[in-house]
Amino acid sequence: MHLGATSYDIVDTANALQFKEALQIVEKDLLELEGILLELAKKHIKTIAIGRTHGQHATPITYGLKFAVWAREIRRHISRIRESRKRVLVGKMSGAVGTMASFGGKGVQIQGLVMKELGLTPAEVSTQVVQRDRYAELMLLLALIAATLDKIGKEIRNLMRTEIGEISESFAAKQVGSSTMPHKRNPVSAEKVCGLARVIKSNVFVALENVSLEHERDLTNSSSERVIIPENFILLDEILKTAKKVLSGLTFHPENIEKNLKLTRGLNMAEAVMLALVDKGMSRQKAHELLRKLSMKAFKEKIELKKVLLDSREVTRLLSRKEIESLMDPRKYIGTAVEQVQKVLKIAERERSG
Amino acid sequence: MHLGATSYDIVDTANALQFKEALQIVEKDLLELEGILLELAKKHIKTIAIGRTHGQHATPITYGLKFAVWAREIRRHISRIRESRKRVLVGKMSGAVGTMASFGGKGVQIQGLVMKELGLTPAEVSTQVVQRDRYAELMLLLALIAATLDKIGKEIRNLMRTEIGEISESFAAKQVGSSTMPHKRNPVSAEKVCGLARVIKSNVFVALENVSLEHERDLTNSSSERVIIPENFILLDEILKTAKKVLSGLTFHPENIEKNLKLTRGLNMAEAVMLALVDKGMSRQKAHELLRKLSMKAFKEKIELKKVLLDSREVTRLLSRKEIESLMDPRKYIGTAVEQVQKVLKIAERERSG
Amino acid sequence: MHLGATSYDIVDTANALQFKEALQIVEKDLLELEGILLELAKKHIKTIAIGRTHGQHATPITYGLKFAVWAREIRRHISRIRESRKRVLVGKMSGAVGTMASFGGKGVQIQGLVMKELGLTPAEVSTQVVQRDRYAELMLLLALIAATLDKIGKEIRNLMRTEIGEISESFAAKQVGSSTMPHKRNPVSAEKVCGLARVIKSNVFVALENVSLEHERDLTNSSSERVIIPENFILLDEILKTAKKVLSGLTFHPENIEKNLKLTRGLNMAEAVMLALVDKGMSRQKAHELLRKLSMKAFKEKIELKKVLLDSREVTRLLSRKEIESLMDPRKYIGTAVEQVQKVLKIAERERSG
Amino acid sequence: MHLGATSYDIVDTANALQFKEALQIVEKDLLELEGILLELAKKHIKTIAIGRTHGQHATPITYGLKFAVWAREIRRHISRIRESRKRVLVGKMSGAVGTMASFGGKGVQIQGLVMKELGLTPAEVSTQVVQRDRYAELMLLLALIAATLDKIGKEIRNLMRTEIGEISESFAAKQVGSSTMPHKRNPVSAEKVCGLARVIKSNVFVALENVSLEHERDLTNSSSERVIIPENFILLDEILKTAKKVLSGLTFHPENIEKNLKLTRGLNMAEAVMLALVDKGMSRQKAHELLRKLSMKAFKEKIELKKVLLDSREVTRLLSRKEIESLMDPRKYIGTAVEQVQKVLKIAERERSG
Repeated sequence: MHLGATSYDIVDTANALQFKEALQIVEKDLLELEGILLELAKKHIKTIAIGRTHGQHATPITYGLKFAVWAREIRRHISRIRESRKRVLVGKMSGAVGTMASFGGKGVQIQGLVMKELGLTPAEVSTQVVQRDRYAELMLLLALIAATLDKIGKEIRNLMRTEIGEISESFAAKQVGSSTMPHKRNPVSAEKVCGLARVIKSNVFVALENVSLEHERDLTNSSSERVIIPENFILLDEILKTAKKVLSGLTFHPENIEKNLKLTRGLNMAEAVMLALVDKGMSRQKAHELLRKLSMKAFKEKIELKKVLLDSREVTRLLSRKEIESLMDPRKYIGTAVEQVQKVLKIAERERSG
Repeated sequence: MHLGATSYDIVDTANALQFKEALQIVEKDLLELEGILLELAKKHIKTIAIGRTHGQHATPITYGLKFAVWAREIRRHISRIRESRKRVLVGKMSGAVGTMASFGGKGVQIQGLVMKELGLTPAEVSTQVVQRDRYAELMLLLALIAATLDKIGKEIRNLMRTEIGEISESFAAKQVGSSTMPHKRNPVSAEKVCGLARVIKSNVFVALENVSLEHERDLTNSSSERVIIPENFILLDEILKTAKKVLSGLTFHPENIEKNLKLTRGLNMAEAVMLALVDKGMSRQKAHELLRKLSMKAFKEKIELKKVLLDSREVTRLLSRKEIESLMDPRKYIGTAVEQVQKVLKIAERERSG
Repeated sequence: MHLGATSYDIVDTANALQFKEALQIVEKDLLELEGILLELAKKHIKTIAIGRTHGQHATPITYGLKFAVWAREIRRHISRIRESRKRVLVGKMSGAVGTMASFGGKGVQIQGLVMKELGLTPAEVSTQVVQRDRYAELMLLLALIAATLDKIGKEIRNLMRTEIGEISESFAAKQVGSSTMPHKRNPVSAEKVCGLARVIKSNVFVALENVSLEHERDLTNSSSERVIIPENFILLDEILKTAKKVLSGLTFHPENIEKNLKLTRGLNMAEAVMLALVDKGMSRQKAHELLRKLSMKAFKEKIELKKVLLDSREVTRLLSRKEIESLMDPRKYIGTAVEQVQKVLKIAERERSG
Repeated sequence: MHLGATSYDIVDTANALQFKEALQIVEKDLLELEGILLELAKKHIKTIAIGRTHGQHATPITYGLKFAVWAREIRRHISRIRESRKRVLVGKMSGAVGTMASFGGKGVQIQGLVMKELGLTPAEVSTQVVQRDRYAELMLLLALIAATLDKIGKEIRNLMRTEIGEISESFAAKQVGSSTMPHKRNPVSAEKVCGLARVIKSNVFVALENVSLEHERDLTNSSSERVIIPENFILLDEILKTAKKVLSGLTFHPENIEKNLKLTRGLNMAEAVMLALVDKGMSRQKAHELLRKLSMKAFKEKIELKKVLLDSREVTRLLSRKEIESLMDPRKYIGTAVEQVQKVLKIAERERSG
């Protein structure tokens, strides 16, 4: 019996060993990132802030909810990585074209023993190489993680805007924002996350092209894999670590969160008032039209919605001053945000201990 | 209590319902395609042909092995689709920013009931929208399937080349290959598969960009999703159906398969001879160098390797004419290709009945 | 003599005719968009606003400068389109493989006459098809235009944020921002521009893949071109028209522009003060350190920088109260923004009349 | 007066200087590659070979025509690069937000002088940075060149297939094709070209994303540009050099070119016969149908088309044996391929000396 392994038996099996180690690092990073987000969700379970859709103020949210949404997204990535392992961590010993012809009839056995020793799954059948849909799946998952980090980075950058200023990346005491504008708090770490995520996302196309190798293999995958595989793991590692650092060091500016909540002078509470009027018996259509009119008045005249409501007979006929004041309190219009986050924390605790 | 669903509760939940139906079609197509490939693998389990790496003749393979490799790749796609469902078939009823504020405290319950009714998983937490990593995962999986179909289409096109001619797409009796070249057997269906796969792969970029919506959502995903989601499902459906049609109607040309096997005058069997010499006691290094020399002689003088071997004292000292003739038979150098395919058929049977 | 044109002589020549008309529409749209931007640059040549880098307030700019930068970018696209025409608007009549064999020796002449009649450039040499680097160039240029529109759309969306509110898309009198938040000014048109731009950008991948057709052509480009060429032109037309509509209807909110200019209590003018101190003899390094210290004081204590400056002996030794007040005026620190825009307007006038 | 340049005045201007040098290298490589292709076109102006569409034998071509088509494509890239320089080789000195505020009113002058000294075009207007449509144009052009090299690499790989064997990459005397298959002529250089081209093409998406920087700039472009700009230039340089080496060392195998020309037993000449019959007075429709029938007969019975033609009364009534034999000669059915190549050589000579 001869050891009829080709160089590609070695290359692809070595790749799988590297993927195994690299995915351990990625998963560890994801778990820590999830942990940080859960901590934030817990700590800010009642930090009420204005919600925004289309970049415009909508009804209130909690920061806890925002972090919980991200934590669940990271958890989905952990699940995806785990599910992919059986397809991705696969080695082979099947010779030049996949027939194991040079192994004297004992190829399947040899492959099985070697892979067991290495802690890899043996490829049932292959050509000269492990099929590249496996590699593409991996690269696609890394791109998907990068896309989430891009989202988180972008959100932090937006919430750090001078006009918004609700949170900021931590700054070292001696760190200077900008040579001529020392007070600037540039979100340079979050920007780096977004920038490098683009590279990881773009490499998807290389991985997809590499799937369609000709016959028992051509060599077009080899040179590009030597670029994108290390590039993707190194860059993802960098932005995962950066995201962890940024999130764990996040500074909150409650005064700005509060200021923003009140910025539209109560207009963000119009929905709550409308629903209250319906509860008191007004038809939904009428309540909707009434609030539209009153909101527009408050908006155009730049006055508090509360004042407009108190001046409206149609409103005060059904709602008392006290009720109106209560309806104007964003703290009272966050629905089940707290319960939802509690539920997420509970689920996560179970998953993370399991 | 009010039905405080926003339009996006409806849009995203409706999307999930469409994904559910569309994925049923995709999975059914994949299962049928796998079935066709398994049939082909079984039928051609002993159809021996030349293997090719770098587009160059290597050692022999079987067509059965080729189809078995593809069948397993399709099976991986079926697994991926199935695993993704829990993350992708997700609906929501959580209002304008995800707090369920307008549902009077009963949002979680309402969402649960509606999703149960619709056969969807409720999103634990969301913003105004279901998070787009879920959609991106789906689009990435469709692209991955398209990449595999591109590979299959490309292989059929290559094996149909005039000079290779081992297989061909079926042609209707009256179908004309080309207006001025009526005999041409253009692989137009396989070419269509490869062409449309490109569109599906490119849409990955859109799906990845759509992940990073701002705050509780911006609207940049909406217009592009209306383009790429139907486009991807329609095109994937088209190329899956085309691939099934092409593969189930594949014509084999045994005379060309045989001709190609012999094209290098036995050079493709040099490895077998080398291993036999080692078995007979020659050092591996010496056997390697000897076969290199003899192969180059046969190659340059355009004569059968067999003749060169029979003329070589070093070879004939260890191998008889009968042994050499046997070693020159590609049918005897396909390793465990048959057993590997049998194993795949067995596994597949279990999976498909399960 | 026979008319030996193949179907692909017709298809590719017809494509060129469609590109010709489509590019006329695109160029017309670009010229109108440039016109709108120049008008805006002129009108807002002295509309001073805060400049932002990293999403953080920096030194002042003018809206005129912002629009002038965009106008020049649109002009570059016009130049690119014009330069590309000679390569893109190319037809062919060269038969099945490019040799014009079926044209009885008069192929070059016939091709020349037909292309002259159609107003196209004849391809000097081709295979069965016009080479697809020409098409890819066109698709890449459309993607580049889409990327610019994405930038403009994003900028409008950001400047429309509730907290920034410097400009907004025009709203019809009866248009409702949101069913429950009637005052919302959602940038839905700008969001559509950004969303659809993604599709056009992603199609680049298809166009690049289509370049490498095999031999005298394979058919893999055909099916995908039928998807991406009309898609790209239709979507680009839509977002160009939307961008024109949005920009020509832009509403300015001077009170918010003013408010934002003062938001950092003069910190954005620190650079101007530093430079003035250097002018008065202070070393650059000392001035830099001094302003850093004073800026941080103003920032931390949330007081006007002016007050801190007036309290600083080191400053008042060199600068009078009047000088300090003048230095705090953003209107006086816009460098040559006005002249630069004037220059752009002059260049553009010449180009547009030429 | 102060030298108020920001770090980004330096970075972007330094980038332009690097682009300038890098583009000189790229252009030099392209010119040399064009030269090699023109040499090949000239040398093989009468090397007649079978043309292929859909991977199937069509009518004859010349290798000269094939190389001429590539030479013109490379020339188009040279033109594109040259046209892009005025937009790409652009520096700036306009301070933190583009207003040149810190240059004491002399910004335009200073910028002009510095750029003149550096041999760059000054950006008329900019933000903190040179607008990234300029960079994206450059990256798109590099991707377009890579796509052409991918096409050339793929064509060489296909023409080197064992069954086709018309050309091959040069092999050093001692170079071994494969450890166990010493005769193999693996197109490893051409495969590398195709592989690395994928990376350059994928980076387009990063460049397109970097166009839409926010306000007077955000920093998301910075980290990714540090990856893709050097990567693209280094990889393009590598594959341009490899393409030059492969093409200048190309070995032709005339015996295989000849063998392939005859592979379809004259079926590839059916068009020529049909046209000759029409010349002799047969209706086009009748001639078409007749040739279809006779070709199918030759194809199915695997006999020479010539024999079938000589056996057909309808044919021999109009064409003599000598005429038929002449029509069967692929050398006589290459249309104006020679003249077209001569024309290309003349144009190229003029362009290259100009």
